[in-house]
Amino acid sequence: MSTYAHGGDVNAFAAHCGCTHEEVIDLSSNINFITPIVDFSGVSLNAYPSYETLTETLAEHYGVTSEELALFNGGSSAIFALLRFFDNSTCTIYSPAYLEYKKAATLYGKNIALIDRFEAMDAEVEENSLVIFVNPSTPDGHYYATQTLMEKWSAKNCTILIDESFLEFCGGESATRYLQTYDKLYVLKSQTKFYGCAGVRVGIVLSSRENIAALKTKEPLWKISALDSHFLITALADEPFRMNSHTLNAQAKTYLKSLLDNSPLFEKVFESDANFFLVRLASMNAREFQEKLIPSRIMVRDCSNFDFLDERTVRIAVKSVSELNRFEITIDEILLGEENVQ
Amino acid sequence: MSTYAHGGDVNAFAAHCGCTHEEVIDLSSNINFITPIVDFSGVSLNAYPSYETLTETLAEHYGVTSEELALFNGGSSAIFALLRFFDNSTCTIYSPAYLEYKKAATLYGKNIALIDRFEAMDAEVEENSLVIFVNPSTPDGHYYATQTLMEKWSAKNCTILIDESFLEFCGGESATRYLQTYDKLYVLKSQTKFYGCAGVRVGIVLSSRENIAALKTKEPLWKISALDSHFLITALADEPFRMNSHTLNAQAKTYLKSLLDNSPLFEKVFESDANFFLVRLASMNAREFQEKLIPSRIMVRDCSNFDFLDERTVRIAVKSVSELNRFEITIDEILLGEENVQ
Repeated sequence: MSTYAHGGDVNAFAAHCGCTHEEVIDLSSNINFITPIVDFSGVSLNAYPSYETLTETLAEHYGVTSEELALFNGGSSAIFALLRFFDNSTCTIYSPAYLEYKKAATLYGKNIALIDRFEAMDAEVEENSLVIFVNPSTPDGHYYATQTLMEKWSAKNCTILIDESFLEFCGGESATRYLQTYDKLYVLKSQTKFYGCAGVRVGIVLSSRENIAALKTKEPLWKISALDSHFLITALADEPFRMNSHTLNAQAKTYLKSLLDNSPLFEKVFESDANFFLVRLASMNAREFQEKLIPSRIMVRDCSNFDFLDERTVRIAVKSVSELNRFEITIDEILLGEENVQ
Repeated sequence: MSTYAHGGDVNAFAAHCGCTHEEVIDLSSNINFITPIVDFSGVSLNAYPSYETLTETLAEHYGVTSEELALFNGGSSAIFALLRFFDNSTCTIYSPAYLEYKKAATLYGKNIALIDRFEAMDAEVEENSLVIFVNPSTPDGHYYATQTLMEKWSAKNCTILIDESFLEFCGGESATRYLQTYDKLYVLKSQTKFYGCAGVRVGIVLSSRENIAALKTKEPLWKISALDSHFLITALADEPFRMNSHTLNAQAKTYLKSLLDNSPLFEKVFESDANFFLVRLASMNAREFQEKLIPSRIMVRDCSNFDFLDERTVRIAVKSVSELNRFEITIDEILLGEENVQ
């Protein structure tokens, strides 16, 4: 099981199930189930890439200037680059959180302090530490109002990294509005989730002009694929996709929420502002649940390796209604099996 | 001039000339002038990318195992990652060399020792230092037999990085044959040059299984674009492209060599085993030469910022015969202008 326990590795799961990857229903990976169609035939690969158009397009999208934005090869690359860059000795991670944060903080020798978001949101943070906050959070999808938190963190002179990879799904306010008033703030953005393009490796860091200039001195001249750049520029201009995506995701999310709420398999469904739900299983652990989903070739994310979550927690992503319908049928069957045993 | 002096920035040059980028003849960028045609319509961007096929394809191409190979977002990203990774306090760069080496070595606090390849190839290297050797070299394109050098460096217990970005053009022997016998050897490969795809960001490091495993612990899970991966897998299987490319480059190189040898504008044409020539101008400096090429919208690389090269050195890349023909006409006109002045 371990090879696909972290979610998203459809090929390994398909091999495990003995099916093709097209037959897999991947509810483990929390990226949009629809992706814009982009034509790459006009892209010139021969020249060294210029990132001006991509930078300007993204800067306009986020309401910052081009000098306040740096590009990385996806969110994970940005996280590694930032954790190398920050010289704070302690790193406070509001958890559970995307696990790459802990990995990168450990790698770059930070002392790690975890704050339990479910039990201790008002915990104090260490002076001059680095604060990492994912909003909406993962794996539960909760959107937090950040005004009071920002005041607390800035009073302690913290360096603040807010990861808004899923903000596009919930329409919450971005922390970019604090960039003018707090100069130790970094906002991490990703288009991977909303545009359903995990294969496109672009992560975006927004901060002050001075911070971005300093961050860029540590980086090579070229690193973003010209193809990825073309994809994103095209996707960001695709207004029909955006509207269509919001409509389809809202419908599918309502459907998923209802089926989770109504199934006795789940003891708790966490409130979510994003395109996925964290659930707590009533009477089996995540691995047992994953095993029971294999005949239907459905993947879900075992969340037991997240801090402050136990072995009965699972994340289930919003996908198309037809895929969710197959999931619904499967959990009904699992429930029937459970009842027959009892 | 400074905005395009480093070569390759066709857009800035076009803006300077007041023309479109399609009208520019870029002899400054030393990548193949032909690129394989690849269809991207079947690429799934929705799933998190898996690099197994790309890794296996490249490993087979270079005659190593998958465990002896690590992927980076282009050669420059690999150089930065390696210079961060190596803990040698001194870095010996055989120069002139690609300038990103000096930049990255400075950034990561190494003492830099330069060895002049033209004057002091038999110079001693410091014990336990990091040796950087580009083969064929840039900006002059000389291929060096490495056996004696390897013996010298390994006797001094050096960590050795050999950059073979241009090896595909000359058919020389790869340093990968020493991987089994010397465990502090790293070979940097790139497909950008031979497949004419600067927009595709994939750099490859080959070393022992242990070194590669250690290097990978410092890196995020995902970083290579699924589109770039698809391009390279397709390109590497394209045998007709490879043959066609060798034929066209050989023809164009012969033509370029002949016109450089025969023009009194150039005092010296360096012998080259790669797809570019370093030349020394007879009676003007590189900037003056660049200025005179602007009416014809031709870019060449001013090499005066390379170590051990002066302001009269210029690099000129092999491009299509028709482009080189425009260059020939232009230098004839420049020569005529020179003679009229005298």
